[in-house]
Amino acid sequence: MAAFLLLKSNISAPLQKKNYSKILLTNYCHNSVINLYQIKQTIMNANAKVLDSQQLLIHWQGHRNLTRRVIEAFPEKDLFEFSIGGMRPFSKLALELIAIGGPALKSIVEGTINKFDETFNPTTKDELLAKWDEETETINEYFSQITEERFQETFNLFGQYEFPVYQNILYFVDNEIHHRGQGYVYLRALGIEPPFFWERER
Amino acid sequence: MAAFLLLKSNISAPLQKKNYSKILLTNYCHNSVINLYQIKQTIMNANAKVLDSQQLLIHWQGHRNLTRRVIEAFPEKDLFEFSIGGMRPFSKLALELIAIGGPALKSIVEGTINKFDETFNPTTKDELLAKWDEETETINEYFSQITEERFQETFNLFGQYEFPVYQNILYFVDNEIHHRGQGYVYLRALGIEPPFFWERER
Repeated sequence: MAAFLLLKSNISAPLQKKNYSKILLTNYCHNSVINLYQIKQTIMNANAKVLDSQQLLIHWQGHRNLTRRVIEAFPEKDLFEFSIGGMRPFSKLALELIAIGGPALKSIVEGTINKFDETFNPTTKDELLAKWDEETETINEYFSQITEERFQETFNLFGQYEFPVYQNILYFVDNEIHHRGQGYVYLRALGIEPPFFWERER
Repeated sequence: MAAFLLLKSNISAPLQKKNYSKILLTNYCHNSVINLYQIKQTIMNANAKVLDSQQLLIHWQGHRNLTRRVIEAFPEKDLFEFSIGGMRPFSKLALELIAIGGPALKSIVEGTINKFDETFNPTTKDELLAKWDEETETINEYFSQITEERFQETFNLFGQYEFPVYQNILYFVDNEIHHRGQGYVYLRALGIEPPFFWERER
């Protein structure tokens, strides 16, 4: 009970944080003796800074370098046409990513709520890659303007995804990895060796 | 030049940080007037805390809930046998994830260098899911013992991946999203609707 009160007083309201206090409690309830010092230490660790803004930007741009390499690996025709199980061709998946990263960051920094816009519709790989590189610069420009407070503030992205900014940004990266993973299967099905997953340098 | 010195004095040695200072400089060199206040602000933002340990744990376990749902979505036989383009069946991809998360965290916390061990070889979906849930608890238990300093320290994971702890952990999550994305294509190719990517609750 003391443990529960301590957790309650240290962990604030949002649903997800409640889940975490459940996680912590579950761990400690396995022990017959509740060690308050250890619980306090765990809560201090729970609030520990994991990484900073520049590290996350480097991480994301590393993933974007790899995704660019996956776009390049597709033969021109297959990039726009090849598909499995009724899914979108890889060009469409890449265009979704282009429509998210730069525009979303600009929107977050400027505090303007813009609609999600997927109208850019290139017909060549070069055109797609040129836009990809343009967005690389946009992301660098706006990412570095996000202050520490902003990462924890909620933002109604594209007028429909109201989450803390850090969750929105993690979602951009995760969504990119998810779709790129699908691109790896397309490449394998086409008999093409995809780039190494751990290669992140431009 | 003043901008370069300021950047040099604020951003420390590692290669990746150097890349970031290049990113920053490139942005500012586009402008004819270098605004020192703005550069200082950007560097302060660059060191901004993005998220804390408990938020990353919740994020990861959310992804693990989704991966569990993808395992469940496979018919028993296809989980162990279906494949595209010579890739591993989804059971093997899930077993790779099982061999990483819990064992890696335990190793990081205890400071012991263990070899990567993929010998666990279940033959049923239930057996695989039971191990998955066991590792969920292991991850909760050890994650909360990582202190703030540790996230930035390097660790020679499995005796072969020497990176800062935060990068190792991001790699576990990214690798899971990557392989699960491949699982989505398998499911679509089998005519099965995968779970929603944004569904992260257990």
